[in-house]
Amino acid sequence: MGGPEGARPGDTDQLATRGPVRVVGTGLLGASVGLGLSTRGVDVVLDDPSPTALALARDVGAGRLAAEGDAPPALVVVAAPPDVTARVVAQELGAWPEAVVTDVASIKASVLAELRASGADLTRYVGSHPMAGRERSGPSAALPDLFLGRPWVIADSGTSSADAVLAVRALVVDLGGLPVTMDAAAHDAAVAVVSHVPQLAASLVAARLVDVDDAALGLAGQGLRDVTRLAASSPALWTSILAANAGEVRRVLEAVRADLDQVIAALGAAHDASGGAAVRPGALASIARAIDDGNTGVARIPGKHGGVRRDYGVVTVLVPDEPGELARLLTDVGHAGVNLEDLQLEHAARRPVGMAAISVLPGAVERLETALTERGWRLVR
Amino acid sequence: MGGPEGARPGDTDQLATRGPVRVVGTGLLGASVGLGLSTRGVDVVLDDPSPTALALARDVGAGRLAAEGDAPPALVVVAAPPDVTARVVAQELGAWPEAVVTDVASIKASVLAELRASGADLTRYVGSHPMAGRERSGPSAALPDLFLGRPWVIADSGTSSADAVLAVRALVVDLGGLPVTMDAAAHDAAVAVVSHVPQLAASLVAARLVDVDDAALGLAGQGLRDVTRLAASSPALWTSILAANAGEVRRVLEAVRADLDQVIAALGAAHDASGGAAVRPGALASIARAIDDGNTGVARIPGKHGGVRRDYGVVTVLVPDEPGELARLLTDVGHAGVNLEDLQLEHAARRPVGMAAISVLPGAVERLETALTERGWRLVR
Repeated sequence: MGGPEGARPGDTDQLATRGPVRVVGTGLLGASVGLGLSTRGVDVVLDDPSPTALALARDVGAGRLAAEGDAPPALVVVAAPPDVTARVVAQELGAWPEAVVTDVASIKASVLAELRASGADLTRYVGSHPMAGRERSGPSAALPDLFLGRPWVIADSGTSSADAVLAVRALVVDLGGLPVTMDAAAHDAAVAVVSHVPQLAASLVAARLVDVDDAALGLAGQGLRDVTRLAASSPALWTSILAANAGEVRRVLEAVRADLDQVIAALGAAHDASGGAAVRPGALASIARAIDDGNTGVARIPGKHGGVRRDYGVVTVLVPDEPGELARLLTDVGHAGVNLEDLQLEHAARRPVGMAAISVLPGAVERLETALTERGWRLVR
Repeated sequence: MGGPEGARPGDTDQLATRGPVRVVGTGLLGASVGLGLSTRGVDVVLDDPSPTALALARDVGAGRLAAEGDAPPALVVVAAPPDVTARVVAQELGAWPEAVVTDVASIKASVLAELRASGADLTRYVGSHPMAGRERSGPSAALPDLFLGRPWVIADSGTSSADAVLAVRALVVDLGGLPVTMDAAAHDAAVAVVSHVPQLAASLVAARLVDVDDAALGLAGQGLRDVTRLAASSPALWTSILAANAGEVRRVLEAVRADLDQVIAALGAAHDASGGAAVRPGALASIARAIDDGNTGVARIPGKHGGVRRDYGVVTVLVPDEPGELARLLTDVGHAGVNLEDLQLEHAARRPVGMAAISVLPGAVERLETALTERGWRLVR
């Protein structure tokens, strides 16, 4: 990667980002920014307090090291841990008095408040946050296309210059991101609900598995796997993110706790009543209401195509667990002329078969079912 | 479906389940039991208080209606809602004094307690619970292979006869389920942790989305979708399940609430400290501990092959959102001679490209990457 072979013909001449771009912090996000820009022909200069991370980022093609005689950067991207971001941004604003500086931290209001308190020149600062990540971290996990198709919040400082905002917007677009304009407070409130609290909920549910016996875990299904997948994330990173967005996360968690308290109280009433007496009217209503609110909430999450979630039809097929079988299935889907909108695999523990749930537009269900049956697939109707 | 065409040659002569089998309650589970047995040539007699559900179950091939001169059933499967299960089981035990009776309710201890209190003949009763379900419900969603490869708990009554246990075990095996022996109390404690609490957690997180604005929802990623997927489930069914397992669910939820309280308190400390003062030592530790415990818990969930989760290698590939592209990719995976262990699709909102994360055994990663690169796929490394 990197170098002229990595440049994509036809991309470079349309790029709006002007180099040199200085990337400070070469973890997953910083190295991916560097890799994405370098691949598209932009001159990227890397920096990181860790010589190891810096060398690794250079080696994966994220950019080059600073050299004497370098032109000053036009744009600085700070990709440091959330709790040091404001300090690094302030240093960079001071060191490069002509540069626009942005950061990619997962929280925006506390960074802005700290910068404001430091007296930094906020006309040249524009906060940002790409909604992208991976389960792996560090420069070796960097991807030039990490930001492709992902929302990328642009949060100006309130006094950012129009030119500074345009420069950051150009960065987002050049890396394939979808610019979303939002102020720092609105951003932090949004990610508390759609990212930080779900992350914590996954951890709290998974934490209950620490002490259960293996027989109980043997009953685990896909639902448990889905709910707890995020719980595999890094404690250090997430502690820092949650602490930096403490106010908003706490506000949402308190609402969760209020609902949880009601459910616990209702279960208490139901439990006391078991053994013969009728359950108190209203006790079960609050359990039903919690689940009903969940129905309403989950239905609001935008689907693949943005906006209102489409109601896909689902065709479920039994797939032998042998090399090439899933490919053969999807080839047959392709031959049916049907576009696959989503695919979920369900695993059967210790069995040589799985199920593939294929989501397609509702009008295509019957055609697909007929085509797959003709080709000998066993459908689960 | 149903009828002689539906019978699978080679299956019938190995079946251990003797008919007639009476299925009482023809929703998703009951109709799937009937369909699975009928398809394998067993005589199934259906019953349901709803004439509509009964007719629909018969029409999808789950079995036939009772007729004069029928032999009495050898086995009765009660697939009624959890809150009426014990009453129906007691009725069936009384009506058919030679039959073994089982039920498939998601909770076992309260059913057994109610039966014991009723003075029913528990030598012929064996509780059971197949860990299977779908997002759709009702007889029209029934599947003959719904139970294939799924754990199916067999919980004897403490005084069940050996013959009764064998009859229920035969049913499980004939339907492709994996028999798991567990007493009613252990079952209920296990499903509280691996199923009921995750279900509620998904609802509580999703409920927070009811009031957020569309801009915030636009930042939703795969993590939120995973955590909240279960929240689409039926309020009526889940209220009934949770109320019937109130004691165990409450116990786990109280542990969740204790962790949640600590996290909220720590966030309060972090929030109060923001603005300059240092965060109190120990405050952040409890946030880190919650996430760390989540790491430990999620690592205990058995993977596809049961037992300890393997560490798969992941190869991530960019896939154009066009018909047949995913099939072409998986065909190329098959040609590389590599077995796909798992596949996750990530969607890019409003972009004509997605990512496929292919899990394979670690030793196969390099071979697969080379093969896919040679065939022109863009890898995300």
